[in-house]
Amino acid sequence: MFAIRNVLSCFVLILYATAATAATVQPLPSWNDAPSKQAIVSFVERVTTEGSADYVPTAERIAVFDNDGTLWSEQPMYFQLFFALDRVKALAPHHPEWKDKEPFASLLKGDVKAALAGGDEAILEIVMATHAGMTTAAFEKTVKDWIATAKHPNTGKLYTEMVYQPMLELLAYLRANGFKTFIVSGGGIEFMRPWTEAVYGIPPEQVVGSSIKNRFEMRGGAPVLVRLAEINFINDKGGKPVGIHSHIGRRPIAAFGNSDGDLQMLQWTAAGDGLRFALLVHHTDAEREWAYDRKSHIGRLDKALDEAEEKGWSVVDMKRDWNVIYPPEK
Amino acid sequence: MFAIRNVLSCFVLILYATAATAATVQPLPSWNDAPSKQAIVSFVERVTTEGSADYVPTAERIAVFDNDGTLWSEQPMYFQLFFALDRVKALAPHHPEWKDKEPFASLLKGDVKAALAGGDEAILEIVMATHAGMTTAAFEKTVKDWIATAKHPNTGKLYTEMVYQPMLELLAYLRANGFKTFIVSGGGIEFMRPWTEAVYGIPPEQVVGSSIKNRFEMRGGAPVLVRLAEINFINDKGGKPVGIHSHIGRRPIAAFGNSDGDLQMLQWTAAGDGLRFALLVHHTDAEREWAYDRKSHIGRLDKALDEAEEKGWSVVDMKRDWNVIYPPEK
Repeated sequence: MFAIRNVLSCFVLILYATAATAATVQPLPSWNDAPSKQAIVSFVERVTTEGSADYVPTAERIAVFDNDGTLWSEQPMYFQLFFALDRVKALAPHHPEWKDKEPFASLLKGDVKAALAGGDEAILEIVMATHAGMTTAAFEKTVKDWIATAKHPNTGKLYTEMVYQPMLELLAYLRANGFKTFIVSGGGIEFMRPWTEAVYGIPPEQVVGSSIKNRFEMRGGAPVLVRLAEINFINDKGGKPVGIHSHIGRRPIAAFGNSDGDLQMLQWTAAGDGLRFALLVHHTDAEREWAYDRKSHIGRLDKALDEAEEKGWSVVDMKRDWNVIYPPEK
Repeated sequence: MFAIRNVLSCFVLILYATAATAATVQPLPSWNDAPSKQAIVSFVERVTTEGSADYVPTAERIAVFDNDGTLWSEQPMYFQLFFALDRVKALAPHHPEWKDKEPFASLLKGDVKAALAGGDEAILEIVMATHAGMTTAAFEKTVKDWIATAKHPNTGKLYTEMVYQPMLELLAYLRANGFKTFIVSGGGIEFMRPWTEAVYGIPPEQVVGSSIKNRFEMRGGAPVLVRLAEINFINDKGGKPVGIHSHIGRRPIAAFGNSDGDLQMLQWTAAGDGLRFALLVHHTDAEREWAYDRKSHIGRLDKALDEAEEKGWSVVDMKRDWNVIYPPEK
């Protein structure tokens, strides 16, 4: 019986392999035939061709992706901040003191700009008030409920509908070629994990991000992890190679980012032995998405753009290189 | 061509499947037919049988293993401490001041007992002097060189020859049944990763352990990670569920340990929804390995043994349950 089932599944495999051969004639359909696409395909072919000088064994085919601005949009502010603001509104009835306390007072009046005028300190206060103090299980449920229903103020889309179709194809293409794909984001690790598997095909154990501390506790005989209002790790800039080393323990051979926060991750990846690949997404499409780079407060791309030029890293010109931005509406 | 190659590999697959069917009649050959083996096999069959009430999808088949005392021996002291002591000797020429400074002075005279009389503080000092101050690449090389040649003082074996054959079989058995196997150890994450893939088949990204902090730096234009003399995380006791949550991001369905340091990991695993499995290795074989439990300074098994009895967790009686301890000599 076992053998018969295998014969059957082998025929399926053969059909699939034939289809796959046909499909590899045209991978990455949402990418125009620009240098960025050519560089990706050439890299993947070289590291996967057995006997080639550039061949890399499957176990070492690690690819890392920034999230905000690389896999999904990040304007007019990081989507996790929209989540935090929505949480402030939801929690306000339990915090009457917020009425007279910044940055909450401005937020509750709907004046986001005034609330964020306090800079990083204000943001940290909002994040801690909305991300800490509950169990990890409770937080996960809150994120899942929000991501399933909340909509972006400009596009009216679900946030998970604002992922980049070309990058979804790239993730699938790399995995079909034996790569393990990881997210390495400045965003919260526990904000991403509840939905990355469904949206990107990236399981929780392949998500690296910023974090607050957790504490193990017994509550009524049951173990829980409690989220503390204390920064554990900031997975940005020089923190990205540190996060990669901590979670993955080996150097990626390909890295994808879009901002100066990704520069060190690209440097770390590119500096390894053998063939390496580094790519930046340059947001150049004000019509279909947003156009911003050297002077943007969100996702500033300045030093990394210069270094890409200097080192010959790939740069996606979103307007030129992508024939689609978001997945087709269902 | 592609299709022909697939037909050929399908015949190989069918042969292999037939062999595998025969093999599943007798999994875990180094395990005697004791309750521990029966419980493992029953658990695996229940969670992998499609349509069964206990079925668990492949992606959620996460199994976590302590290392010291669970996958390899840990007496008369943790093997990483032997590494540290050897490093003290190797580094002593560069540290003339150690001659008059404890715990180094005693160590260099060969009096380990006197050196460790300083307790945790002395151990911390030895660890930092030998594990910090170099790049991650340099440390990795040092570990690889040591583990390839250093021998255990009592057995004369390489340390990697003191892994438990029954546990190697268990790891392979779980993986053959779709499990992802992780190490979750109090030992140093960067001390384990250089050899766990070759020895246990567990890749670096599936190793969770204690760590010191790393810092990203550019040295002569090249990026490096530098190991700092500062504790980052202690992956022991209540730290184990925290480490699991940080690295894996979902709750395991099976956990394997041997000491009170593993208790919270087993509690966390066992408290999840659906069928769960928790097992303790009880060191009862003074002849073939070591016998110790409630009063041992290394690998104390006291509270966890009581809780295993209370909750019906599996306990391996090493002397009774394992017909082999270490892999056959090559």
